[in-house]
Amino acid sequence: MGDLPNSQLHSIFAPQSVAVIGASIRPESVGRAVFSNVLRYGYTGVVYPVNAKARSIMGVRAYPSVLEIPDPVDLAVIIVPSFSVAQVLQECGQKGIKGAIVITAGFKELGGEGIKREAEVLNAARGSGIPLLGPNCLGIINTDPSVSLNASFSRLMPSSGNIALVSQSGAVGVAALEYAQSEKIGLSKFVSVGNKADLNENDFLAYLHEDPLTDVILLYLEDLADPGRFFQLAESSSPRKPILAIKSGRTAAGAKAASSHTGALAGSDAAYDALFAQCGVMRVESLEELFDYALAFATQPLPKGNRTAIVTNAGGLGIMATDAAERYGLAMADFEEKTLARFREVLPPAANIHNPVDVLGDAGEECYAAALDGALADAQVDGAIVISTPQLMTNLAAIAAAVSRVASGHQKPTLVCQMALGEIEETLTILSQGRLPHYHFPEEAVRTLAAMARYARNLSRPLYQVKTFADVDREKVAQVLAGAKKEGRRFVLEPEAHRIFQAYGFPVLPHRWVRAAVDAVQAAEEFGYPVAVKIISPDIVHKFEVGGVKTHLHTAGEVRRAYDQVLADARKLRPQAALAGVLVQKMAAPGTEMILGMTRDPLFGPLLMIGLGGTLVEIFKDVMFSVAPISEEWARTMVQDLKAFPLLSGYRGEPPRDLDIIAECLERLSQLALDFPEIRELDINPLMVHAQGQGAAVVDARIFVG
Amino acid sequence: MGDLPNSQLHSIFAPQSVAVIGASIRPESVGRAVFSNVLRYGYTGVVYPVNAKARSIMGVRAYPSVLEIPDPVDLAVIIVPSFSVAQVLQECGQKGIKGAIVITAGFKELGGEGIKREAEVLNAARGSGIPLLGPNCLGIINTDPSVSLNASFSRLMPSSGNIALVSQSGAVGVAALEYAQSEKIGLSKFVSVGNKADLNENDFLAYLHEDPLTDVILLYLEDLADPGRFFQLAESSSPRKPILAIKSGRTAAGAKAASSHTGALAGSDAAYDALFAQCGVMRVESLEELFDYALAFATQPLPKGNRTAIVTNAGGLGIMATDAAERYGLAMADFEEKTLARFREVLPPAANIHNPVDVLGDAGEECYAAALDGALADAQVDGAIVISTPQLMTNLAAIAAAVSRVASGHQKPTLVCQMALGEIEETLTILSQGRLPHYHFPEEAVRTLAAMARYARNLSRPLYQVKTFADVDREKVAQVLAGAKKEGRRFVLEPEAHRIFQAYGFPVLPHRWVRAAVDAVQAAEEFGYPVAVKIISPDIVHKFEVGGVKTHLHTAGEVRRAYDQVLADARKLRPQAALAGVLVQKMAAPGTEMILGMTRDPLFGPLLMIGLGGTLVEIFKDVMFSVAPISEEWARTMVQDLKAFPLLSGYRGEPPRDLDIIAECLERLSQLALDFPEIRELDINPLMVHAQGQGAAVVDARIFVG
Repeated sequence: MGDLPNSQLHSIFAPQSVAVIGASIRPESVGRAVFSNVLRYGYTGVVYPVNAKARSIMGVRAYPSVLEIPDPVDLAVIIVPSFSVAQVLQECGQKGIKGAIVITAGFKELGGEGIKREAEVLNAARGSGIPLLGPNCLGIINTDPSVSLNASFSRLMPSSGNIALVSQSGAVGVAALEYAQSEKIGLSKFVSVGNKADLNENDFLAYLHEDPLTDVILLYLEDLADPGRFFQLAESSSPRKPILAIKSGRTAAGAKAASSHTGALAGSDAAYDALFAQCGVMRVESLEELFDYALAFATQPLPKGNRTAIVTNAGGLGIMATDAAERYGLAMADFEEKTLARFREVLPPAANIHNPVDVLGDAGEECYAAALDGALADAQVDGAIVISTPQLMTNLAAIAAAVSRVASGHQKPTLVCQMALGEIEETLTILSQGRLPHYHFPEEAVRTLAAMARYARNLSRPLYQVKTFADVDREKVAQVLAGAKKEGRRFVLEPEAHRIFQAYGFPVLPHRWVRAAVDAVQAAEEFGYPVAVKIISPDIVHKFEVGGVKTHLHTAGEVRRAYDQVLADARKLRPQAALAGVLVQKMAAPGTEMILGMTRDPLFGPLLMIGLGGTLVEIFKDVMFSVAPISEEWARTMVQDLKAFPLLSGYRGEPPRDLDIIAECLERLSQLALDFPEIRELDINPLMVHAQGQGAAVVDARIFVG
Repeated sequence: MGDLPNSQLHSIFAPQSVAVIGASIRPESVGRAVFSNVLRYGYTGVVYPVNAKARSIMGVRAYPSVLEIPDPVDLAVIIVPSFSVAQVLQECGQKGIKGAIVITAGFKELGGEGIKREAEVLNAARGSGIPLLGPNCLGIINTDPSVSLNASFSRLMPSSGNIALVSQSGAVGVAALEYAQSEKIGLSKFVSVGNKADLNENDFLAYLHEDPLTDVILLYLEDLADPGRFFQLAESSSPRKPILAIKSGRTAAGAKAASSHTGALAGSDAAYDALFAQCGVMRVESLEELFDYALAFATQPLPKGNRTAIVTNAGGLGIMATDAAERYGLAMADFEEKTLARFREVLPPAANIHNPVDVLGDAGEECYAAALDGALADAQVDGAIVISTPQLMTNLAAIAAAVSRVASGHQKPTLVCQMALGEIEETLTILSQGRLPHYHFPEEAVRTLAAMARYARNLSRPLYQVKTFADVDREKVAQVLAGAKKEGRRFVLEPEAHRIFQAYGFPVLPHRWVRAAVDAVQAAEEFGYPVAVKIISPDIVHKFEVGGVKTHLHTAGEVRRAYDQVLADARKLRPQAALAGVLVQKMAAPGTEMILGMTRDPLFGPLLMIGLGGTLVEIFKDVMFSVAPISEEWARTMVQDLKAFPLLSGYRGEPPRDLDIIAECLERLSQLALDFPEIRELDINPLMVHAQGQGAAVVDARIFVG
């Protein structure tokens, strides 16, 4: 057996011997399915059935207990009833077994008694020092020919390949195995992680990262056991081995289903989106996308850019593929003159030599070969899609062979779309052998190449290095928060919020907390006009609702009147509210209003948010989230990924906005949020952002604590 | 042969006899393929091969010319070289042939000589009174068992079904036939329209509308021959027979120089989007969508709403389907208490009885039947999706049969997703016989049901009745336009634009064209402050660029200064410009700024546009287009379909805006654009829209002519 890494999981994926505890001959029983899978799919080690009563299972000598097996056993696959599992695990410990897969269901997913039973099982495993996969899982499959172990009750054994699949749902795993087989997609490893009582996706990510037989890692997740560790593992893996993930339960409705199904603790979905993006995991929506992408990532080099050539024998499909290219963010390559000259020479006169290249309905394999070779040799082309339909004289198998041959001579991704019925089996085999990804519809090939281009672009970002600002005053912030806590307040007062932001190096405006009109006027005179005044009260969160904000005050008289007015209005509209004075604040120079915020996810910790201010942005939901901490680079990425980014980068002759200060504010916010877990949520709304080099100003802010 | 409508096309789809002119025995020739298709797919009439030299083709007596066929011939299928086609058509005329399909290529699609040759062919057909399909087409197929004619060179004969396909691309047609066959989707008719020299999609739409064997019409289009006629035909067909269309070449945008915002925002494709939406055609993006939807429309009743039940034996797939439901706009149904009570009784205790219903991995067909029957009987459910994966004890065929039986007892759409490999052939047959649409992935089923719900909602709109406003002054508009034309101007001056809008009943603001400061002041005094002044010049389109607009003028002094200033600035910045005075305009009361516009498409005529004003809307491209004329209902639909619509309908306690006046302005704009083809483009930007009942005001407008 191969020299596999991570000895702990090595006993699970590549054991020298396996005991199937609960092996059975009862038809349609899981115990029979598992044992039969180990036996019939060519396991290279020794398998021992364990069954309390049977002398043999399928002709193999059976033992009443693991303890009676005369030889050493590496792996136990356990299918006994749920109440016996803990006991069996203790025996496994006595036997010196190094890993266990508990397939039996009836644990945490049932709630109540099941949760308790799962804790007992985990205790038994930990007590015996046995790493445990499951319970309530389908098992594992290792297609490595030197192991060839199907320790699952899947009815299929995938062919071997370089794609690994980790699934949190057994049924989704089954569906995925069926699909992979129907598309002739080979797998290296398959793991169903079940309830993740002990081993979870992170353990397998770490293992697969080192597995020389795995080049692409697919995940189906319903939650993450430990987002922080996932981040670290994925971040170091994703540049070398693409990780593609489905995280289901995306919607509120979906999340509800998730908790009722596996008892999983669903994190907020914005956090998952953010985390995946930040650590380079490509999130996809469906199994179809998952395998469409995996097939290309597993066989093709990443493109250097998004300039795409399309070669087709059907003009209409070429147009549809071009439409799809625009939709999915690919650019149609503009061929070099020498490529066009070559096409004029080798392609028939009626062919369209411009992209999409139409080699015409009667094109033979030479024609395809010439067109693809020319396109891939063109310096303006980053990747190619070849479309073939069965027309009168079309030999699809010959074309598939020619395309495979040509593609292998270039270091650019080539994807094939073949819309045919009869020859599909034959050509699929040719394409699989030629390691060319194949799709049923042009749109699928286009979407996949676009995903590769996005992934490649993401890899070019610099390492995720988090800056720590030294010029912050933790003491001052702690003081303010302690004060609010002492008074039992759920939010800090606005001047306190400015004090906090000031302590953390944010660009706050000149402001003063006053309790007399004369002091308000003096502050205004010092700051320079115009100023704003705002009511301060521990009982008023929404100052605007009580007319508690007066802006654009240009004279001492206006300030004095505004001072009296906000107090009078507050007394009238909120007679019960304690009033703590008035905030005088210099007005910010005009700029672009942005919103910066933080909310704390129970599983992920602080989630940072940036967006443009104003109601339209709310309606278009044009905000970006990230999990803290963030690097400067990532802060810039968040801003650039806003749909409204063009408004910040010099729209229609406007000067570009100060992107440096936005990024810095995000980084400082990240640090503040991590330093003070007692800050529950906060908004800076608006952060007024000025032109490049001119900075920004925190105009209004709310900080919620506790 | 059946009593088919539209006698002209009857000769093409259901001829009593067919001459294949250019029939051949040469291997891989089109002439051989066509003749052999007619012969071997059981044509119920008589086929005569015509070949200059052969005594017989495939054992059938051949004739050197149609004229020598001793019996009457209804249809000629022509595959002779392009230069002989016109001659052959003349002979067909002499013979009294009633319809011709010219499969031969080498015409308009080649340009140059080919265009001329196509004109000759058309002349010959018209001269002989023969309706002509093609040239450069694949042919037609009629699966009606009483005809059973495959007069094409497709290598497949689809099974019979109630879906018709009209394709402008032969190769896309081929791809579609291959796909339909692989999915066991039957067709009623197939037409490849080729170059559309004579017959085009409209002729076939009219025919299929009457065809009793066709329930759903699929179109693959690269252009429309006559959008106006298409609109009428589709509008009357779509409520009874859903029409699903791919229009490719979405992005093949000719860089059109647009003067107006509207022109710039209207992609080449906006007109197609608008037209399809207005006449109830469902536009789709890919062949996969086309057939996914067709299969459901062809077999299932339309849902009454979008409340969906999901039944699955795999929880993970249920969650993914739920996620997809949210993504595609379906709502997850909330079951009635009595349904839940029933589920508690009939489903196993561990099953999830809430939507998505998880019948668990070991569910048998009874379990599926009970769950689906309960869901479909629930008044809160409009449609259902059934998901099955092959687990250990799963009998997919039995489940498919049970699902078919249960679904047939309810009048609600039921879609099936089965993720399996081995049983797919068997269960596909069961599902096809049960007339249940089947999908490979839950997302496809969800997307399809969502499309049905959208389609059904669209059908509920009232008839498309266009109002004609009588209170318009055509004479006045004609006068203004004639004046601009006489002076060779490309746009009308702003006061002229307001005159035009006023003449057509738009809410214009009090305004006056003045040539002296004293008149400006007098106008302001009459209108009441605040006012705006704007420079008027036939040489200045972009007034803002020369500081030519001053707003918020509150006093006579401000008006006088502004008057002098705009003239002085214009003289300084555009010394060559002729200055025609100044426009004094009352300022509009505050409101929501919208943009209303029109641009003229060469094929479609006036395209109307509505959107919110401001730069964000431009960035989010949140505008709606429609082809004129529009009904009041459609005008309202345009506004409601804006993503920013919530801002107009009472956002966060704001009063709702005056939607009536927006709709009326759109209708009046429609009338204006149709009445005056010399108006090339126009923008009203902004139209200031006030609260409900308070109307709106045309603040700024540009009209381009010629």
